[in-house]
Amino acid sequence: MTRLGTAYYWEYQRSPDLRRDLDLMAQARIRTIRVGESVWSTWEPRDGEFDLDWLTPVLDGAHERGMDVLLGTPTYAIPPWLQRKHPELAVARADGSRIPWGARQEIDFTSPTFLRYAERVVRQVVGRHGSHPAVTGIQLDNEPGLHLIHNEPVFERFTAWLAERYGDVGRLNEEWGLAYWSHRLSDWGELWRPHGNTTPSYDLAWRRFQAELTTEFIAWQADLVRELVPEDRALTTCLAYQRPALDDVRLSEHLTITSGNAYYLTQDALSRDAGAAPADPTWFATGPAGLFQAADRMYGSKGRRFWVTETNATSIAVSQLNLPPYDGQLRQAAWALVARGAELVSYWHWHTLHHGCETYWGGILGHSMEPGRVYGEIATLGAELEAAAGDLAELTPDADAGFLYSHESKWALQFQPPLTLDGRNPDRDSYERVLATFYQGAIDAGRQVAFVTAAQVKRLPVVVAPALYCLSDELAAELTAYVRDGGHLVLTFRSGYADEEARARAEIAPGPLRALTGVRYLEYSTLLEPVPLHGLGRRDVARHWADALELEGAEPLAFYDHHHFGRWPAITEHRFGAGKVTYIGTLPGRDMTAALFRQPETDALVAADTPQVTVHSAVNGRGERLWFVHNWSDQENTVTIAGRATEVTGTREPIAPGPMRLAPFDVRVVK
Amino acid sequence: MTRLGTAYYWEYQRSPDLRRDLDLMAQARIRTIRVGESVWSTWEPRDGEFDLDWLTPVLDGAHERGMDVLLGTPTYAIPPWLQRKHPELAVARADGSRIPWGARQEIDFTSPTFLRYAERVVRQVVGRHGSHPAVTGIQLDNEPGLHLIHNEPVFERFTAWLAERYGDVGRLNEEWGLAYWSHRLSDWGELWRPHGNTTPSYDLAWRRFQAELTTEFIAWQADLVRELVPEDRALTTCLAYQRPALDDVRLSEHLTITSGNAYYLTQDALSRDAGAAPADPTWFATGPAGLFQAADRMYGSKGRRFWVTETNATSIAVSQLNLPPYDGQLRQAAWALVARGAELVSYWHWHTLHHGCETYWGGILGHSMEPGRVYGEIATLGAELEAAAGDLAELTPDADAGFLYSHESKWALQFQPPLTLDGRNPDRDSYERVLATFYQGAIDAGRQVAFVTAAQVKRLPVVVAPALYCLSDELAAELTAYVRDGGHLVLTFRSGYADEEARARAEIAPGPLRALTGVRYLEYSTLLEPVPLHGLGRRDVARHWADALELEGAEPLAFYDHHHFGRWPAITEHRFGAGKVTYIGTLPGRDMTAALFRQPETDALVAADTPQVTVHSAVNGRGERLWFVHNWSDQENTVTIAGRATEVTGTREPIAPGPMRLAPFDVRVVK
Amino acid sequence: MTRLGTAYYWEYQRSPDLRRDLDLMAQARIRTIRVGESVWSTWEPRDGEFDLDWLTPVLDGAHERGMDVLLGTPTYAIPPWLQRKHPELAVARADGSRIPWGARQEIDFTSPTFLRYAERVVRQVVGRHGSHPAVTGIQLDNEPGLHLIHNEPVFERFTAWLAERYGDVGRLNEEWGLAYWSHRLSDWGELWRPHGNTTPSYDLAWRRFQAELTTEFIAWQADLVRELVPEDRALTTCLAYQRPALDDVRLSEHLTITSGNAYYLTQDALSRDAGAAPADPTWFATGPAGLFQAADRMYGSKGRRFWVTETNATSIAVSQLNLPPYDGQLRQAAWALVARGAELVSYWHWHTLHHGCETYWGGILGHSMEPGRVYGEIATLGAELEAAAGDLAELTPDADAGFLYSHESKWALQFQPPLTLDGRNPDRDSYERVLATFYQGAIDAGRQVAFVTAAQVKRLPVVVAPALYCLSDELAAELTAYVRDGGHLVLTFRSGYADEEARARAEIAPGPLRALTGVRYLEYSTLLEPVPLHGLGRRDVARHWADALELEGAEPLAFYDHHHFGRWPAITEHRFGAGKVTYIGTLPGRDMTAALFRQPETDALVAADTPQVTVHSAVNGRGERLWFVHNWSDQENTVTIAGRATEVTGTREPIAPGPMRLAPFDVRVVK
Repeated sequence: MTRLGTAYYWEYQRSPDLRRDLDLMAQARIRTIRVGESVWSTWEPRDGEFDLDWLTPVLDGAHERGMDVLLGTPTYAIPPWLQRKHPELAVARADGSRIPWGARQEIDFTSPTFLRYAERVVRQVVGRHGSHPAVTGIQLDNEPGLHLIHNEPVFERFTAWLAERYGDVGRLNEEWGLAYWSHRLSDWGELWRPHGNTTPSYDLAWRRFQAELTTEFIAWQADLVRELVPEDRALTTCLAYQRPALDDVRLSEHLTITSGNAYYLTQDALSRDAGAAPADPTWFATGPAGLFQAADRMYGSKGRRFWVTETNATSIAVSQLNLPPYDGQLRQAAWALVARGAELVSYWHWHTLHHGCETYWGGILGHSMEPGRVYGEIATLGAELEAAAGDLAELTPDADAGFLYSHESKWALQFQPPLTLDGRNPDRDSYERVLATFYQGAIDAGRQVAFVTAAQVKRLPVVVAPALYCLSDELAAELTAYVRDGGHLVLTFRSGYADEEARARAEIAPGPLRALTGVRYLEYSTLLEPVPLHGLGRRDVARHWADALELEGAEPLAFYDHHHFGRWPAITEHRFGAGKVTYIGTLPGRDMTAALFRQPETDALVAADTPQVTVHSAVNGRGERLWFVHNWSDQENTVTIAGRATEVTGTREPIAPGPMRLAPFDVRVVK
Repeated sequence: MTRLGTAYYWEYQRSPDLRRDLDLMAQARIRTIRVGESVWSTWEPRDGEFDLDWLTPVLDGAHERGMDVLLGTPTYAIPPWLQRKHPELAVARADGSRIPWGARQEIDFTSPTFLRYAERVVRQVVGRHGSHPAVTGIQLDNEPGLHLIHNEPVFERFTAWLAERYGDVGRLNEEWGLAYWSHRLSDWGELWRPHGNTTPSYDLAWRRFQAELTTEFIAWQADLVRELVPEDRALTTCLAYQRPALDDVRLSEHLTITSGNAYYLTQDALSRDAGAAPADPTWFATGPAGLFQAADRMYGSKGRRFWVTETNATSIAVSQLNLPPYDGQLRQAAWALVARGAELVSYWHWHTLHHGCETYWGGILGHSMEPGRVYGEIATLGAELEAAAGDLAELTPDADAGFLYSHESKWALQFQPPLTLDGRNPDRDSYERVLATFYQGAIDAGRQVAFVTAAQVKRLPVVVAPALYCLSDELAAELTAYVRDGGHLVLTFRSGYADEEARARAEIAPGPLRALTGVRYLEYSTLLEPVPLHGLGRRDVARHWADALELEGAEPLAFYDHHHFGRWPAITEHRFGAGKVTYIGTLPGRDMTAALFRQPETDALVAADTPQVTVHSAVNGRGERLWFVHNWSDQENTVTIAGRATEVTGTREPIAPGPMRLAPFDVRVVK
Repeated sequence: MTRLGTAYYWEYQRSPDLRRDLDLMAQARIRTIRVGESVWSTWEPRDGEFDLDWLTPVLDGAHERGMDVLLGTPTYAIPPWLQRKHPELAVARADGSRIPWGARQEIDFTSPTFLRYAERVVRQVVGRHGSHPAVTGIQLDNEPGLHLIHNEPVFERFTAWLAERYGDVGRLNEEWGLAYWSHRLSDWGELWRPHGNTTPSYDLAWRRFQAELTTEFIAWQADLVRELVPEDRALTTCLAYQRPALDDVRLSEHLTITSGNAYYLTQDALSRDAGAAPADPTWFATGPAGLFQAADRMYGSKGRRFWVTETNATSIAVSQLNLPPYDGQLRQAAWALVARGAELVSYWHWHTLHHGCETYWGGILGHSMEPGRVYGEIATLGAELEAAAGDLAELTPDADAGFLYSHESKWALQFQPPLTLDGRNPDRDSYERVLATFYQGAIDAGRQVAFVTAAQVKRLPVVVAPALYCLSDELAAELTAYVRDGGHLVLTFRSGYADEEARARAEIAPGPLRALTGVRYLEYSTLLEPVPLHGLGRRDVARHWADALELEGAEPLAFYDHHHFGRWPAITEHRFGAGKVTYIGTLPGRDMTAALFRQPETDALVAADTPQVTVHSAVNGRGERLWFVHNWSDQENTVTIAGRATEVTGTREPIAPGPMRLAPFDVRVVK
């Protein structure tokens, strides 16, 4: 059942009132609590001494009220006694310095020493509570992959990992081009440390290896926990998708269900016309498109419905950035997540903490522990979701555009970014920025997106492969087959430029995509300033990059207005087999980007009357299609209902065809 | 007697001319010189070998000319032989690295090893010269508290300090909320180092402890020197108020008189309408209000008159920032300091140094050693002060607004700042920024400020407690009593939000001030952009923060113009007992802030006709009130004299009632 | 013969086609290849095992096509086996940490251990190939002086170097003013490390010493190689002029010919009216003046013609800054270098690398290995240069303004910069910025510049000594003699302010230049904002600095419009002996700066009609004067030809007197 939840840290309170907390939750229809993942030192206050019973009243109390519990293993935060006993567990940074203890996740989780202690505490905690009838799932560790681990044993494993992949150093010399700058190895023991590395292929290997370590750790823990709990318990972890050592798809293969964070910026940033983000855009989703993207990424991890284990309640982040949502925004966000496949929307967290690093991560209750505006909004939402439970069962979100996400390309473009932040310094988030620009365009054009793997592209009529820098010949062949069979492939600058070793390809670009795209280029340029762009009946700007596209069968769609760049088209389209390819040699402005995704009239039940409104759809277990209509604006807006409809939100009354009103920051769901 | 002085480093000169220097000083009525505090390696060129007599000609020469000498102990700058012999004295930073030798104050002054050497040199220097008739005071060390000292023995003392305060680790676990993120200790030896710390209560304890170390060191040296000199010698040190390990009030308990730096920005920055500061605003006072604030802080350290041991002569700071004062500005600054209680205004320094780190800290003489414009300005001022000596004797500055300064709140808000610098990154000087905003408002409204401790609030009709984040129940009770008895308390956002452990209070905000303020709030928001604000007959803007104030008896005074924040008042006023409380839930613009401090017509002798003019007053030993009138502008301005007056500056003639002219950057004193 | 070249890294290619590469080069008239300098691990794959023959086909292939080869010694990039065997060779940074291996130039080249290995590989490589008939020169190491080397043995040498210079510590105490902040030494062993140093004289000594180490290393290698090759082989190295440990003049004394980098920003940045640079201006020349300055610096290193061993082909630098030249710009740059004395213009590099740090340094061929637009431009240029070969033989560039370059002043002003970047933070490139401003002025005024040493000033009618901060009495006497004998000396703020120890002079400024300049000043000020400036019939602005000039015989030329600074002139002129001195107390805007360099009408053959055009001249071996006319603009412009002329570029036809057209980004050479 689609439900609300919250992280609940009873053990953090100085004067806890369990009954009051659980009753307030129940009144707000919060039906899942997530507990216990951060308190190893409470579970095991001294080496080998366990204190396990403190959680029982919480589990019992939840069970009495019909609430589920997601029980976390505490392995991401080791206790003081363990860091004191084994200082060598501290993560070494690239420069050899150790991450000091004092937060969490400062440990080399690959260490056998650590794993021995971790196994013991997991056996105790999960052994004690994993079969409690309230417990329906186990969270394995938390937000894994925070650090690249440079401890010496890890580096030794990396060397062995390379030796296994490449066989001998001669092959490595060849593949990585190590004649360059006198880097040829004569022995594996000569491999340099990552700290001074300047070789792109090395860096990509290091990133792949680190992501594998994370997956391996979660898989190890999944196997361990599986032994300890009844079969119906779901195994999951809470993914923070921006973690540097994470491949969410590979890792999710070891989980029953994917869970993750959906933190987003609120207030003005959660309107359709939001400007620049006040905070780190890789941690926070920005704007409605960012929120939908976060949900679609989670769906994409397994290609299935998912749990949102953390999402903002009152506010997020640090003491200088407190941004409680405007009235209606919490409801908007929850319905957006549900629309895109969330089975659980779990707030972080029940009560705002009075001490510790996250004092200013605002919970459902503030520091006062008094239900306020936010509690009220969530309670209203909880009732609404409960009323709609039947409609929401087994919801499958619709999708008509696929996005191919490439961890390798992201990593390679972090090392060699194509974009600048300011006309000078590198934008290490170039990959995410290009992707987000096209995702935004898809949303602006009314598309619904699914993140897909190469194997899944065939399911969708349009597939976008933004900045697919690391392209193997195999993947190029798959994309070619997709288009030949009728697919519409959208490629951008940097797509196909390098191979799976992050080497620039020694062939005319875009290399193995050249025949497919019907274009070639021998040069490209950074655009230090935006350059006017026209085409598709529009005027917009080209930013950051321009491939010098020469037509080899493609049609030009858009052009630069510039004495030098004007000789080359900016965007082209090429018919190939039964399909077509759009190639975009620059980063267009918002209007032009959206134009690339526009489609002819559809037979949708709901049509937005203004750009501030989004419409998403999903089909429930009964085969009914639901339409989720959001007004991302502080002004009233309308949509047009094309036929007979019933509202799933609000009063749940039938709605006549014609215009339907949306209040500021409103969301309405109809079927 | 109110007098001018200068730091005089004869020993730094390559071709010193003592007689010429002292004669030039005497001609300019410079009556105090400050000597000897930086040259341990000259006093003791080799371990245990002392060279003490080089100073005698300076002391004798001063004495012959009727000048006083402030003799410094040289303990803040250890000699090369000592750093070589005891490298372990180097201050360890948080990350364990050592501060390299090459400047000064790089030593762990808590080390018994260091203290043994320090005692020996102090006994020699002060023993030799402390009783010289010219010497009227001893400066103990210099600008103490520069570094937080992370040397291992200091950390061990910190652990013991905690153990003594908290008794057992269980209590610490409880008070600091260490269940969070698996931080519960089972033994004091498990305490983590400050480097990785993320716990606010830990940080606050660490800061308190470090400030205590500084106080302890100065107290130790005061006790030592007291043995060595006649009783009438004043013991002091030169305080740099922005030092991170400093509590000026506690430290000053061990001094005869407080001394400190009054560095301020000159040229356009020293006008009433100055814009942003070109340099670090925590090191340099900015604008007239900044200068007055620096003086008022020094007065506040002991609640008594003070010495300015360092203030700019020609220019200040680094090679790229040379800002010699405009004509008149030196005179303005000196009179401002005198008005607020300075007995001594001592320039740093006599001659600009030809070598060393501070080559571009311009002295009274430039590198040329030739008296120039600045010397001329100081000589004019010296004559003026001498002529006014009788009027200035035993001057007590007036004050009608108290400011409560909270080191704990400053430290806690450095760790968890409420303000951003740029809409994103934290402003670690948030506390000082909030304080300075309200101090500026008080000055703009014609108020005169005294910095007070909790015990002193009763003396003043209005007391401001800006951003008093760390509020104990005891202090809350004292403030409540103050208002009940008729005081007017001005509180701001963050006042009372946390307790003395920097924990957010688990009660409805503003916690123990709720009854007093007549407001409560369950949420608050960062304002990423200024929001229009109206009230008190004005339109202005609210910046950075908005408490969601709900009225519980208070009257609203000002409101946000905003679709979301508009529901809550921005400023309120509450009658309580015989007094009242103003609560300001945001950081208002300058105009609105000043409006909060405006008062009805007074019977002042002098009234400013334009905002560019400030009027301060003080009462001398004869009971006469003096009025110090500054024109902080490059334009002429006037004030109105209400009655019969005599000028203390300039020609010292009677002045008729009516308008009195002030030239650009002029100051006139009347009685 | 004036020729084109390219760096050629056959060994970096995965599927090399030597014949095709060399044939393509020959077709483009590329007549020199530079090889082998980066691949020690290819030359010596294991300790003592050499593989030397791989280069032979390249040398033979070049020889067959009549091409020259510049063979590099590989000492700047040690192989993995050597860094593993001798980790102590890693350069220590100031803080003691080691530069990690992974790029190149991470080694302490002063180490005897390193030198032993270096000698062995040089003997092998140069012994094997240095006498090949194609090889005409040997490049010793590459771009030396990248790091200040803080390894302990180097510091010990520094101490000994000081002891030898100063004799005893007492003298050092005196000269460096070490009474300050307790720095007096009693023994050389007490010298502090550079890391914590705050003493300007210390820093200057350290920089001098480091530059000497670089010179010593190249001299050592020159002596070694001289033994190994026939006498007619030229010895050179590739200088990167911005290296911190480099004195190009001293180092070049050990070379047959100076070679260096001429990297410059292209596209809009290479127009006369370019704005701010998108990249580090110390690495890239900016604008036409920057390009000419780079060339003139190289000429100045030995006062002779030079080789450009590296200049941009398609693009330069990092992945986010790809700026292929506009049509014509490569030709413009090459002709500009030739006009100023380049015998060789060698592109970096032949093919864009597919892997490694410099993947996005675009070569003549792109990653595709396919000749494109850039290859075409170079081939056209090659043909043009070949056609003009006779005209270009033994070309000596004209010069009518000398610039005195002072490494000491540059280093001293890096330590104590006079300018800010932003009104606050120091501009460590202050020296270069002042110099570039006046160089730009000279170019704008149609001057041709020679960089000169003190001994060379007499050759030129005007000599500029910008920001000559470190001025010895000896140099002051030489400059005085120059003016007395009729020279025109241009001095700026900071010129002569300090002595050769970077001590501020203890005399009235500008010290030993006072009589010469006819001005004195006792103070100076930073200008936080530009101040209006008038004089020389112009209105402009004064920036960053204002000396408070008092006239002692000089005439004022320009004045500040400011209530405070207006009392002092900004620019003065003084007749002295048979010559005159212009003194500029500020950094004027571009227009005023150019005005200082304007000269009466000359009898030049070519006169620019617009500011976008530059005209340079040089005299060839036949005594003919050639005129190099550039249009640095995307608009057409013209010049006026005063007499009978023949074009050396293009069609090589006679040109009638009158207007001559220049296309956008055109260059035409006439004689």
